[in-house]
Amino acid sequence: MRMLINVPETVVADALRGMASAYPDLTVDVEHRVIVRRDAPVAGQVALVSGGGSGHEPLHGGFVGPGMLSAACPGEVFTSPVPDQMARAAAAVDSGAGVLFVVKNYTGDVLNFDMAAELAEDEGIQVAKVLVNDDVAVTDSLFTAGRRGTGATLFVEKIAGAAAAEGQPLERVESIGRQVNDGARSFGVALSACTTPAKGSPTFDLPDGELELGIGIHGEPGRERRPMMTSGEIADFAVHAILEDMPPRGPVLVLVNGMGATPLLELFGFNAEVQRVLRERGVAVARTLVGNYVTSLDMAGASVTLCQVDEELLRLWDAPVKTPALRWGM
Amino acid sequence: MRMLINVPETVVADALRGMASAYPDLTVDVEHRVIVRRDAPVAGQVALVSGGGSGHEPLHGGFVGPGMLSAACPGEVFTSPVPDQMARAAAAVDSGAGVLFVVKNYTGDVLNFDMAAELAEDEGIQVAKVLVNDDVAVTDSLFTAGRRGTGATLFVEKIAGAAAAEGQPLERVESIGRQVNDGARSFGVALSACTTPAKGSPTFDLPDGELELGIGIHGEPGRERRPMMTSGEIADFAVHAILEDMPPRGPVLVLVNGMGATPLLELFGFNAEVQRVLRERGVAVARTLVGNYVTSLDMAGASVTLCQVDEELLRLWDAPVKTPALRWGM
Repeated sequence: MRMLINVPETVVADALRGMASAYPDLTVDVEHRVIVRRDAPVAGQVALVSGGGSGHEPLHGGFVGPGMLSAACPGEVFTSPVPDQMARAAAAVDSGAGVLFVVKNYTGDVLNFDMAAELAEDEGIQVAKVLVNDDVAVTDSLFTAGRRGTGATLFVEKIAGAAAAEGQPLERVESIGRQVNDGARSFGVALSACTTPAKGSPTFDLPDGELELGIGIHGEPGRERRPMMTSGEIADFAVHAILEDMPPRGPVLVLVNGMGATPLLELFGFNAEVQRVLRERGVAVARTLVGNYVTSLDMAGASVTLCQVDEELLRLWDAPVKTPALRWGM
Repeated sequence: MRMLINVPETVVADALRGMASAYPDLTVDVEHRVIVRRDAPVAGQVALVSGGGSGHEPLHGGFVGPGMLSAACPGEVFTSPVPDQMARAAAAVDSGAGVLFVVKNYTGDVLNFDMAAELAEDEGIQVAKVLVNDDVAVTDSLFTAGRRGTGATLFVEKIAGAAAAEGQPLERVESIGRQVNDGARSFGVALSACTTPAKGSPTFDLPDGELELGIGIHGEPGRERRPMMTSGEIADFAVHAILEDMPPRGPVLVLVNGMGATPLLELFGFNAEVQRVLRERGVAVARTLVGNYVTSLDMAGASVTLCQVDEELLRLWDAPVKTPALRWGM
């Protein structure tokens, strides 16, 4: 076990204390596990609340701030947060304009956000939900009925967050979030498994010299296992899988996302191959983001997310944002 | 070998192509391996040029942009760039106000930047240099005479870059860079070795359940090897080693830096412990940065850098910056 931790039981609380020290613009409630932008609630703005299991950092806590999430609720590692957390977050950030829950499609998260919505509505808070289910690799995985929510979460949170920051009403912010998810697809590969603090050993067995195609962000099984492929071959496989599911209609946002342990040097090289495949397929690229954004602890590997954008979505993507992990224009 | 690459020989060129696609604000000369901010040269401003072996991304290419570096020269993995690269970069960015070379203290880098300075001066470019040597762990390592340059490089490049962006003259930008380095100290630990693409196997042998204290950013040996320690014990060891060398005088900037494969979740928890030790030692913290900034490929581990700041250095730290990896205020 090669972990920089105290004991597995305090990993999430320790991380929250460390976030609190690093980001004075966030209010971190370590006891109740809620991360809130310090200036919330913001009058006249819809608030966005997301959350999910820990181990995917910077998702979601690193996306809290003006122009993106109003609050995030981290669960234990790879475990959904509980409804009380989400309801508490909603109460902390609701300005009266309502709250949008951004929910990755995992069974636990879906159930818990549903219960949280009831709790919040009981308190008079108007709640809407966007379900993120962008992973084309598999349906009905270990953790999910239907498709898993992965990299598109970043696009939903950024673009719907920008609409909220402009003062658009809840119904419109929700429909923008849905539009983003509907036009987004992801595909991931693992070059190694990940190790959770509680388990202390790899979540699955992946022999050296093999890779798993179509992996999820918790080490769920993928589509198939193959002998190691080159960066170019992986890019071909991943982008073709996405485009087969979603024939390109217009320009796309590209996210080349590291799973945690793959060096940025390799991610940039992989991005070059992803861009090559997109060029060959005649897909216009509007913007590209490369880095570790939706991770899986210490897993080596990467995912590709493509998100169709029209002029309005692109304008909202480019709008100012100020969070620990995404920051521009302000 | 669990690498997302094509072949080891093209890793750096592939990464540069991928950077070019992702960052339209940068001009990337893949053939000559120079990354330049697109609007260079900027009239009336001193230009900053840095570089070094690849494998430490986002250092240095990710720090190119307004308020920080004007250009970066990546060498092969863990190998100094050559004088021609640096001289070419200097010529591309010099506005007539002169160029500051920021050089990490490794034998190859020092020699090559010295030769580059001569080449540039032959072309009529005024050149000054700041040597970064902040690592308190060891002197005279495999790659270095004297102390190694590690995390403080980020502080030197950001703070001197801000001074340059204000139009301060070369002599002043150089002295600010020296002041930053003189007041900065680092200490790193490795929980695993790293694997270079060319070698394909770990650079050293670190058995599971042990860690190496005082590691460099190329897998150089550290001070000592010990059985695994907790995050809190490591923070105690690292911060005490730094403060023993540099007794605290005033407020500090804190960098809690991941070596590449350690999850952000763990880095935040480690930051909580670093902040605890600083509180116990009565050291005031002005700002904190947590993330993977000066990495060592897929090494697991972290480093701590403390940088003494006065009001002027803190003002320059807070000044606007717009690069791939550091971005605020513009």
